[in-house]
Amino acid sequence: MANYKLSIQYEGTRYNGWQRQDSTDMTIQGKIEQVLSRLYEEKVEIDGSGRTDGGVHALEQIANFKVPKAKNRFLEEEILSYLNEYLPLDIRVHSMEQVDERFHARLSAKSKIYEYHIDRGKVENVFHRRFAARTGEPVDVERMKAAAAYCLGTHDFKSFCSNKKMKKSTVRTIHAISFREENDILTIRFRGDGFLYNMVRILVGTLVEIGDGRREPEEMKQILEAKDRGAAGYTAPPQGLFLVKVFY
Amino acid sequence: MANYKLSIQYEGTRYNGWQRQDSTDMTIQGKIEQVLSRLYEEKVEIDGSGRTDGGVHALEQIANFKVPKAKNRFLEEEILSYLNEYLPLDIRVHSMEQVDERFHARLSAKSKIYEYHIDRGKVENVFHRRFAARTGEPVDVERMKAAAAYCLGTHDFKSFCSNKKMKKSTVRTIHAISFREENDILTIRFRGDGFLYNMVRILVGTLVEIGDGRREPEEMKQILEAKDRGAAGYTAPPQGLFLVKVFY
Repeated sequence: MANYKLSIQYEGTRYNGWQRQDSTDMTIQGKIEQVLSRLYEEKVEIDGSGRTDGGVHALEQIANFKVPKAKNRFLEEEILSYLNEYLPLDIRVHSMEQVDERFHARLSAKSKIYEYHIDRGKVENVFHRRFAARTGEPVDVERMKAAAAYCLGTHDFKSFCSNKKMKKSTVRTIHAISFREENDILTIRFRGDGFLYNMVRILVGTLVEIGDGRREPEEMKQILEAKDRGAAGYTAPPQGLFLVKVFY
Repeated sequence: MANYKLSIQYEGTRYNGWQRQDSTDMTIQGKIEQVLSRLYEEKVEIDGSGRTDGGVHALEQIANFKVPKAKNRFLEEEILSYLNEYLPLDIRVHSMEQVDERFHARLSAKSKIYEYHIDRGKVENVFHRRFAARTGEPVDVERMKAAAAYCLGTHDFKSFCSNKKMKKSTVRTIHAISFREENDILTIRFRGDGFLYNMVRILVGTLVEIGDGRREPEEMKQILEAKDRGAAGYTAPPQGLFLVKVFY
């Protein structure tokens, strides 16, 4: 089998997220599989490094797909230009390479970076309206930083997981959380070994509730210990979230 | 008369430019005038610092409008929030202030900054597709810089004006042209006392033809001297162009 790794960029605004659905597929995975299946004249399935929710963007999502050697009659460059010719303009494949047969975009991933953008301007910036979220009240970044420190390291992040039926481990390691303020945009960057369903958005929602004074920074510790989704804050809206990079 | 100055931001993608048209108005000026006229229950006209073409964006456009003292029954804050409540999300008024009665957004303008964004990536960046233009061939920035130097200072820019019936002076002064490369985006910034119809886009189109080797940097001098639109390069597409700032 030939195994191909794809580096994919997308604006999530129009899509119901990464994961393929049944029919009339407005998903990133579905769109890419449709084009690849047309190229190879047989069903091709791709594996992404993870799902992104509807409306979430990716600066660089990684996926891979396998083709039997007998069917493998195209050059990488041909596959890449075929994909970009037939994919919608809000999904682009930036590069592709043949990789070891054991490479799996999800299982081989070592860590990921996500970023969340908050537009703190008095009036919304039109160029960020699809790429940043607004908060109801002004947020104090120092309070958010103090709260974020409790999340660093290895914890059970069950309070930050929307999937109530999650049977697998909800233990994850967050290596770093950093804050950047540029003009009116506050960017919160998370680097970790993996993230649960909605985890970054719930972390951000909780940080916002701490930043605007509804909760205290120290409560973050109790929220983690509660292992209960109800203990954490709201789920921040999807348009502010970007999958930035996947490390292998 | 009360004279109000507005600082306006817009994404031009959906619009037929700044200037009001007859009916079914998809123009920035038209949209703002509609909302103000509804607020004041009489026709209100606004003057912009200049027209921007269909598809061109503004980080900060300036406009002003006058209201007879008798009609002037709203606080500035009320007008601002009414505007942002009823304007579409791709047009925002970021601030407003009452100014001297003699202030006129166009006539009082001393200079302007425009920026043009070119996406030089091998594959288009999905987040820049509405905000940057692509070039057919790679461009050499050093060649573009050498050519741009000929445009600095005061010249008759008739070769860079799309309006063939232009009867007024086509002499303008360009104070500075600078180039910035960040990731795959090349930004060309123009600061000048004023710009003719399509002037920045024709300057960029000509610089691209020089950058990709179709023309030599030295030709810029002859193009200026020709005072003929036919001598210059193509009109670069609107989506790469931003009105950045107007100085008074």
